[in-house]
This record gives sequence, C-alpha cells and structure tokens, in this order.
Amino acid sequence: MTAPDFTLAVHGGAGTIDRKLMTPERDAATRAGLARALDAGGVVLADGGSAVEAVAAAVCALEDEPLFNAGRGAVFTSAGRQEMDAAIMDGRDRACGGVTAICGPRNPVRAALAVMRHSSHVLLAGEGALAFCREHGIPFEDEAYFHTESRWQALQDTLALRREGRAENDADEARRHGTVGAVARDRHGHVAAATSTGGMTAKAPGRVGDTPVFGAGTFADDATCAMSGTGHGEIFVRWCAGHELHARMLYAGQSLAEAAEGVVMEALLPNDGSGGLIAVDAAGNAALPFNCSGMYRGVMRADRIARVAVYREDLAAEHRR
Amino acid sequence: MTAPDFTLAVHGGAGTIDRKLMTPERDAATRAGLARALDAGGVVLADGGSAVEAVAAAVCALEDEPLFNAGRGAVFTSAGRQEMDAAIMDGRDRACGGVTAICGPRNPVRAALAVMRHSSHVLLAGEGALAFCREHGIPFEDEAYFHTESRWQALQDTLALRREGRAENDADEARRHGTVGAVARDRHGHVAAATSTGGMTAKAPGRVGDTPVFGAGTFADDATCAMSGTGHGEIFVRWCAGHELHARMLYAGQSLAEAAEGVVMEALLPNDGSGGLIAVDAAGNAALPFNCSGMYRGVMRADRIARVAVYREDLAAEHRR
Repeated sequence: MTAPDFTLAVHGGAGTIDRKLMTPERDAATRAGLARALDAGGVVLADGGSAVEAVAAAVCALEDEPLFNAGRGAVFTSAGRQEMDAAIMDGRDRACGGVTAICGPRNPVRAALAVMRHSSHVLLAGEGALAFCREHGIPFEDEAYFHTESRWQALQDTLALRREGRAENDADEARRHGTVGAVARDRHGHVAAATSTGGMTAKAPGRVGDTPVFGAGTFADDATCAMSGTGHGEIFVRWCAGHELHARMLYAGQSLAEAAEGVVMEALLPNDGSGGLIAVDAAGNAALPFNCSGMYRGVMRADRIARVAVYREDLAAEHRR
Repeated sequence: MTAPDFTLAVHGGAGTIDRKLMTPERDAATRAGLARALDAGGVVLADGGSAVEAVAAAVCALEDEPLFNAGRGAVFTSAGRQEMDAAIMDGRDRACGGVTAICGPRNPVRAALAVMRHSSHVLLAGEGALAFCREHGIPFEDEAYFHTESRWQALQDTLALRREGRAENDADEARRHGTVGAVARDRHGHVAAATSTGGMTAKAPGRVGDTPVFGAGTFADDATCAMSGTGHGEIFVRWCAGHELHARMLYAGQSLAEAAEGVVMEALLPNDGSGGLIAVDAAGNAALPFNCSGMYRGVMRADRIARVAVYREDLAAEHRR
C-alpha cells in the first residue's frame, strides 16, 4: 500500500502583532506552541488517521497552551467571563458540530466533535451546550483553569480605553481577537477543519463569532478545501469567508492559492475584515494568506518537520527543545 | 420621479403538509395570515420604504400570528421551553443582525434588527441577547403570550413517539419545523431578507438552527439576491444554502430561478434537506422553490395584490375578508 503525503496547517491568530509585546521568550514560546500542535496532529496523520482526528488533536494542543486565545487562556467578555466557541467539519460529507458561548469543557473542540458525532443538531449554545457536554462525558475544568492574568489585564486595558471613549484597535489585534485552528488533508485524501476561540476581548456576553458559523470561520468539503479563519469575526460572517473560498474554487475555477488570497484581500480587507485563514485542498496544497502584519501559523507534511512563522516571513523549521 | 416596481415574498414554513390536519378553516386562516404579512411589508415598499423595513414588518406580522412557528406560537424544546431565533440582512452592504435561543422579545425580528443597527456584533445568544434587547428597549412579553396549546400538544406527541422509539418524521413536517421569512426588493433596487423561527419541536435546548446563520437560512447581497430558507435547518447550515444561491448566481452565471431550484433540488434534497426557500434578485424577480409537498408562501408586487399558495399550486389572489 502506498502512503501518500499528508498536509496539516495550524494557526494561532492573526492581526496587527505588536512587536513591543513580543519578547524573544514569548516569540519562542509561541513558535514552540505551534510546533507542538503540528506534532499532535501530525502523529495522527502519519499513522493513517483521519483529518478529523488530526485537526481535533492539533486544536486541543493549541487550546491547552495559554498563549493562544482558546480554551485555557481564552479572553474575557465585557462582563469578565470567558465564553468559548469551537467548531469542526468533516470534508467527506460536510458533517459538522459546534458549540458557542460556553465555559467549562477543557477542550471546546472536543465538545464540538461530540456535537458532530452524537447530536442531530450542528450547533449548540450556552447552557444547552453544556448540558449536552455533561451527558456525553466531556471533561470539564473550573474557571481557575482557564484564567490567565494577561488576558484579564487585556480586558481591564480595553475597558479603560472604552471608558475614555478611545478606539480599542490600537492594541495588539491578535491579542484582542486571536483564534486557533487547524486544517488537514489525510492520507486517504479527505480534508477537515477545526477552529476554537475565546472570541474578542470585551465582547458582549452571548456574542457568536465566525468560528462556529459553518461557511464563515470553519468549512470543509472534499470537493474543494478545508478552511479555518482568524480575525475580525463579524466580517468573516458577513462575507461568508469559508464558503466564499469554496465557491471561488468550485464555480470560478480558481486554485486554492488564488481563491484564498482573493477571500482575504478582496472580500475581507476592503470591508474592515482584518485577519487571515489557513486552507488545504484535497490534493494536499496549503494556503495561509493574511491581510495584516502577522499570523501565527505553521505547516507539517509527511517529513514530520514543523515549519512555523509569525510575521511576513517564510515558514522555518522549528526545532523542538 | 419614476416609481419602479417592488417585489415582496414571504413564507410560513415548508415540509410534508398533512392535509388531514388542514381543515378548511385552518387553510383559510393560514392564507389570510400570509396575505396580512404581504400587506404589512407591501405598504412599506409602496411608500418607497427600504427592503429592510419591509421584511421586518412582514416578519412581525407572521410572528404575531400563532398559526406560524415564530414569535407567538413558536414550538417547544425537549425541555418544554420556547427558544426563538431570528435574523435580518441588508443587501446594500451585507449588514446583518441575529439572535438565537431567546424567549421574551415580542418580535424576535425586531431584536435582530436592533443587533444589526446597534451592536458591533452580528449574532447574540441567550441571556446576553436578552440583556442587549432590554438595553435597547425591545418590547417583551411573558411566556403566556407565546404559548399555544397546539404547539404544546405537538411537543407531547413528539416526546411520546421518541419514548416509543418511533421515527418522528411521520408527523406534519411544517408543524415540526416551520419557520417564517420575507425577502424584498425595494423601489431603490436594494434587497433584504429576514427569517424568524421557534426551531424544531422537541429540539435540544440551546440548538442554533440555520435561521440566524448568515449564508445558511438568511442571506442578502444586492449583487445577487436576498434569501430566506425554511426546512431541515441543519442541512441548510451544512450546505450553506443562502451563500450557495449567491455563488451559483455570481460565479456560475445562473439566473435566480435556476440557482434557487439548484439549491433546493441538488444541494438540499439529496442530503436529507427537506424544505424550500424564497428569494428575490435586484431586478425584482422572485423564486419560491421547495422540494417537499408544500410551502406556505406568497408574493406581492406594485399592484398590491397578495398572491398566496400552500401546496403545488399556482399563487392565487387572496381576497381579504
């Protein structure tokens, strides 16, 4: 049996990344976190596992890393709570599952996977979602597990700017609205996508962003590609970023690279849609375009080398310490 | 100044409509309800008002009518509560707003409109959405206002079938998962869409259907069309029904009629996506395809005649009593 190549891509948020906040230690820790996520998903794919299992494993690793805005280390709402969204989609048949406005499950993407596999619904919100998670044995953590001092401070900073009537967008965008995600093409030729986020710092309670909106921040169809977005979520929803990518490939005959660049630069950027996306097609090509100063990102193929980048720079092999 | 034509279309749900449940009285009341909604939106359009205002007015009329599954007369969740979703989208700039999993606002579509106009977010869920509605002066009603005995009985019937392990889909589908919606093309050439629903009888608490997912059950873009869907919502989400319609027109060069038929018959039907949609394009054409036995529907143009239909039958002028 041949063992064709696989492709895994991950992101950890995009935006105007303030280099002043990026100490050498933080830069190294972020790149190492991306590499760990690639390792976690890569081992699944190398063993012939499914794209769905691989993106779930990669996103779990990113949720576990407090540097990223998802799971542990999620940002806080204007009410000082953490409300997380997550979604997963299988390119084989477009099966999908998502959760929104929840705090409790250690890995929100595992909750999304349970919705995909065990619910007749595709998206569950709030208390109803949590009840479903409890019924299905999803591991929970208490609020202290998810809390990080830097996210709490980011909320205080944003609320102070808001009280002073100052624009909030002079801060580090990736810090304000980071998101994590993974897309994969497995050795069987199938694609899948998963995304997880705490949303935007100081978002309104109950806000549903693009992450759990299939066709916006998360999308997968073997006919074209799998996609995970990160950035100004409301704009990704209005411009249906994920399905726009699919449609450009399916109906306009664009390549993955052309279509991904088109979504980010033509659909999102002119409409205040700062951000980026990662995508893989069924042939194993990857695209990681963004329209802002940086996107935490990485790719792994069958050579099992984790290649990562943050700014407008080439992907570079990340050597694990 | 010329007064070009306008187009308004409404729906009140689609599915396998059980003729045994359809007494002459109920048939007449349903058609009259559709005509009242057309009147409510038509007066806005005739006066030169915006498509957004027209679809909001039409959907309010449908929410107020207990025969339809939205607002007053919404179906019940498996927990015996009513949880409503609503959304509105403006084709001029794709501005949009939605609410999900709420009970309280008399007209959920008015809550969606407030989100579109006054929130930096596009979709709010549950308690957070209700807090936003209170802040913005949206009128509330108590639970007794929304309760109808027939919906409560439908829940008991469905729960009984579920306890017996019997399929639930032998009941009236339009009764189980009706939805209301309106699309309009105003005299200025702009389009808009609004949708409102109680969801599916015995749905899980917290379930988010296609209604508030922009690009699934609600979509509008002057470049192509405005669309409101009704049917098996999860399938509309997975197949991104609204944006699929847009993409077929924009990238595949299909007419509104071709694209709408394609979405309903090629994308939804083979994937267990029973239902239908209503759509108008910027030229004022309307399409109202469905892949099941019936869809409560109607159209009004500048002659101000309300034309309605339920089964596979031509639209017929509805004479108000």
